[in-house]
Amino acid sequence: MISMRSFKTLALFGRYNTRQSGEAFVTLGNYLKSRGCEVLLEEHTAISCGLTVFPTADLAAIGARADLAVVLGGDGSMLHAARNLATSGVPLVGVNQGRLGFMTDIAADRMLEMLGRILDGDYSREDRTLLSLNVRRDGATVFSTLALNDVVVNKGAVGRMIEFLVHINGEFVYDLRSDGLIVSTPTGSTAYALSSNGPILQPGVPGFALVPICPHTLSNRPITVSDDSVIEITLKRALDARLHYDGQLQGDLNEGTQVVISRAPHTIRFVHPPGYSYFAMLREKLHWSEAL
Amino acid sequence: MISMRSFKTLALFGRYNTRQSGEAFVTLGNYLKSRGCEVLLEEHTAISCGLTVFPTADLAAIGARADLAVVLGGDGSMLHAARNLATSGVPLVGVNQGRLGFMTDIAADRMLEMLGRILDGDYSREDRTLLSLNVRRDGATVFSTLALNDVVVNKGAVGRMIEFLVHINGEFVYDLRSDGLIVSTPTGSTAYALSSNGPILQPGVPGFALVPICPHTLSNRPITVSDDSVIEITLKRALDARLHYDGQLQGDLNEGTQVVISRAPHTIRFVHPPGYSYFAMLREKLHWSEAL
Amino acid sequence: MISMRSFKTLALFGRYNTRQSGEAFVTLGNYLKSRGCEVLLEEHTAISCGLTVFPTADLAAIGARADLAVVLGGDGSMLHAARNLATSGVPLVGVNQGRLGFMTDIAADRMLEMLGRILDGDYSREDRTLLSLNVRRDGATVFSTLALNDVVVNKGAVGRMIEFLVHINGEFVYDLRSDGLIVSTPTGSTAYALSSNGPILQPGVPGFALVPICPHTLSNRPITVSDDSVIEITLKRALDARLHYDGQLQGDLNEGTQVVISRAPHTIRFVHPPGYSYFAMLREKLHWSEAL
Amino acid sequence: MISMRSFKTLALFGRYNTRQSGEAFVTLGNYLKSRGCEVLLEEHTAISCGLTVFPTADLAAIGARADLAVVLGGDGSMLHAARNLATSGVPLVGVNQGRLGFMTDIAADRMLEMLGRILDGDYSREDRTLLSLNVRRDGATVFSTLALNDVVVNKGAVGRMIEFLVHINGEFVYDLRSDGLIVSTPTGSTAYALSSNGPILQPGVPGFALVPICPHTLSNRPITVSDDSVIEITLKRALDARLHYDGQLQGDLNEGTQVVISRAPHTIRFVHPPGYSYFAMLREKLHWSEAL
Repeated sequence: MISMRSFKTLALFGRYNTRQSGEAFVTLGNYLKSRGCEVLLEEHTAISCGLTVFPTADLAAIGARADLAVVLGGDGSMLHAARNLATSGVPLVGVNQGRLGFMTDIAADRMLEMLGRILDGDYSREDRTLLSLNVRRDGATVFSTLALNDVVVNKGAVGRMIEFLVHINGEFVYDLRSDGLIVSTPTGSTAYALSSNGPILQPGVPGFALVPICPHTLSNRPITVSDDSVIEITLKRALDARLHYDGQLQGDLNEGTQVVISRAPHTIRFVHPPGYSYFAMLREKLHWSEAL
Repeated sequence: MISMRSFKTLALFGRYNTRQSGEAFVTLGNYLKSRGCEVLLEEHTAISCGLTVFPTADLAAIGARADLAVVLGGDGSMLHAARNLATSGVPLVGVNQGRLGFMTDIAADRMLEMLGRILDGDYSREDRTLLSLNVRRDGATVFSTLALNDVVVNKGAVGRMIEFLVHINGEFVYDLRSDGLIVSTPTGSTAYALSSNGPILQPGVPGFALVPICPHTLSNRPITVSDDSVIEITLKRALDARLHYDGQLQGDLNEGTQVVISRAPHTIRFVHPPGYSYFAMLREKLHWSEAL
Repeated sequence: MISMRSFKTLALFGRYNTRQSGEAFVTLGNYLKSRGCEVLLEEHTAISCGLTVFPTADLAAIGARADLAVVLGGDGSMLHAARNLATSGVPLVGVNQGRLGFMTDIAADRMLEMLGRILDGDYSREDRTLLSLNVRRDGATVFSTLALNDVVVNKGAVGRMIEFLVHINGEFVYDLRSDGLIVSTPTGSTAYALSSNGPILQPGVPGFALVPICPHTLSNRPITVSDDSVIEITLKRALDARLHYDGQLQGDLNEGTQVVISRAPHTIRFVHPPGYSYFAMLREKLHWSEAL
Repeated sequence: MISMRSFKTLALFGRYNTRQSGEAFVTLGNYLKSRGCEVLLEEHTAISCGLTVFPTADLAAIGARADLAVVLGGDGSMLHAARNLATSGVPLVGVNQGRLGFMTDIAADRMLEMLGRILDGDYSREDRTLLSLNVRRDGATVFSTLALNDVVVNKGAVGRMIEFLVHINGEFVYDLRSDGLIVSTPTGSTAYALSSNGPILQPGVPGFALVPICPHTLSNRPITVSDDSVIEITLKRALDARLHYDGQLQGDLNEGTQVVISRAPHTIRFVHPPGYSYFAMLREKLHWSEAL
């Protein structure tokens, strides 16, 4: 598919909170400038790489000015950038420093070729759903964030099984005794949820997967629910539980705390290089081409 | 939810191809008549029960005249009636002869009470997606049918693993070596697909589950795809394979035969008695309330 | 099977660290005295129940004098008593306060009948394997204990995936990235391991199950190894990991700490009431008799 | 481990019922003769390869005269040769024509090197358990065979779920409704049983795995039982069921037919080349070294 939108200003993002060589950023930035683009370097990336050759920008400036964000890192870096860019609508594309990731479509050794073709307009777009997470106590929201992969209620420090009630749109679903529960987007269905026996959800499916972690009752199988569901998780007793989103620890959950999860009002747009295929990516990442 | 539509003409269906006592049909039919309704007895049911007290009707007449079909039987009877009524748009409700089923919402001992409330307008409606199955050979369709639960490509008489290619909307998904593949609707996700590690799909989710049966490659996990997918399954070699839909054997598959599955143009409407809850049904059928 | 050994001195154990009514202890103790037995009440149980009508005894005295220990509680109470009695060779039988457990064979309402028949010699015996857990740092053992169910290396407070090396008898097995690993006896195979997709091991099988928890690589399936294996788990990097045994938190694991697991030199003997059947217990606990 | 036994007479086996080039047999046979060994070519292999350069021998002669059987083929060829050599006690080693198999330890490109070292005495031995399968009707055995991997009771031509009773040593285990049941040795635990969610059993574990195929009741999990178990499977109703062993179709099962499975009196001895490691083989075959 040839898209008509042209990318004039590109923002470069690196790994989050990790030292990283600046070399690939210089190579890419110079190439983009040679193509007539303006290049912005995300401010934390600039510091962590020690680069001063490109103008730096904070998230607000990137959100206001960039036409495309290019992430040089792994799937975790994509998650971080996506959460931060969702409200601004800036699309993302990922370059994996090693081999491909589930979200980083471009291999390092084809970086300039693929970005060049994207600048030529040879790319496809795909909008991915995000979760809106709200933690409520005594009727008030005490924490909220977006998540691209998943929200996880997990057992805590002592490591004992937890028990909680799940409601969807106010309707009682189950009283779950388990190590935890993963609420996953299609994007997150190939991440943590997959290792807990969750189903793969094709990105276009408007659903979320509820995937129990080590459920006490063996028939507590994963359920895919509509993505217009409001999912509410309430700890049943004072237990040692923790809340994570996209692999980030949010904090402890107390009795009476409610975790409310719904589809975020914004989506994040992925730009895919020419030749991208979701199923081809799955085949490679999950070794489906390999016979035993 | 109180619905405004009133049911004047009701058609009664029994178990398919199974002898069945006529007693419940007489009880129900007389009650419906006492409520001022017209009662039609599906013709095969009339023969298998040996009943002549109500006028009989074939599927065409039921499709033309009935406002509601009541099925007295199990989930298999619902599947059969649903496939036959889909094109006419007559809604269905099920009375289980024993305890509840996944689709038969009304227990035998509450039959008159629940049907009475449904006649009062106290019911909810839900539309369920069906699959359209087409078998093609040399470019021509040699068989087609609807399926409410699933279409299954399975190993055949010799019992050897089969191998086939799956494409979705023309895009290659995988080359699967396995005992078979289940393509399931949300309705079918709690049937055969569940016993093969498939995910539960809430009926509202517009997706189909692709569930491999005993896949040779352990990472060949179930995938939920959008229900606007056209799924094409092509046997890779001359192998011993069979095709089933909703538990019915269609026949053998030969090399060069293509199985094409997509969303049917029609849906089937379920009428649920007051108090119906999908999750309550799951909790009861899957023993979620039971702790170990 | 009629066994010839007669039980003269019986020790009564209650729930560990939990307040409990003394009523059942008084009923049982008086019955046992009426049958000519000596009754000892385990010292912590005496305190927690506030009972002074029977002589109390510590573990050393029970180990030296008792012919049979009767546990009034659940599976957790059995685990606790078993670990403490293993070296003394005192056999155990469990009375569940509610319905049956995996290890508590006698239902509360048949307590006197079943204990009476056991005193008559109408019982069977079964020896269960225990694990010996040793935690080593810089070549020295810093902690050791017995476990009847399992030893679990688990992710810790931050909740990130951990990575460790597993060796068996010095041979490298795998480098596992996961939420953790359960090493389970046959007794423990129906506990936590079962909820993490582990296999059921019949108690007579001389093996241990290695069951990964949410493994990153989907083909990292449970393995049953011989029970003469010495299993060594070594954290690969400085990660946040915790060690549990039989559901008890042992503590944090540091880089360079080795967890060494082998079959304990002692077994624990279970006394089963007449009519006991392992498979009957499984059928009841896992609802195998229930059709969907 | 250096073993003292020397191999003087070697029998060469090829793929069963499959045309195969004779080139590798000639290369290997000439090498073995150059090392002073006598070479026998299994008679069906001689025919299928069209080779006359070595003396041919039937199974009886090989059983009487050979010190070692070398199988050039895949795991299926090993299964076939193992069943036929079990009673004679001739050990086996496998050369895979392509990459390694679960049982064929030697890669084609190291064939002469590894066989040379085995002739030097540089090898290890491992005895593998076989199943003894007896099919009984009206009290009489109507079929019996050995199986190295598994015995499978499976649904038949119509493809409907089957139902049967399982007893172990006369004790009732369960009434199983499913697509079938796999009874697997440790050797077979990495074959069909693995794709049906069975556990891996280390070859030294004296147990058999009972692995349901698509069980109707979700808690019907795989069970590992002691290998001194006599496992009896009885079809509950006249259903369409089939019996397989090691992937071979034995035939249809009728109501009243009993399938009796126990440990065979003979084992089969595998010879492993130097450097062989069971866990290394698993890591390679199951891609455990690969991170996602």
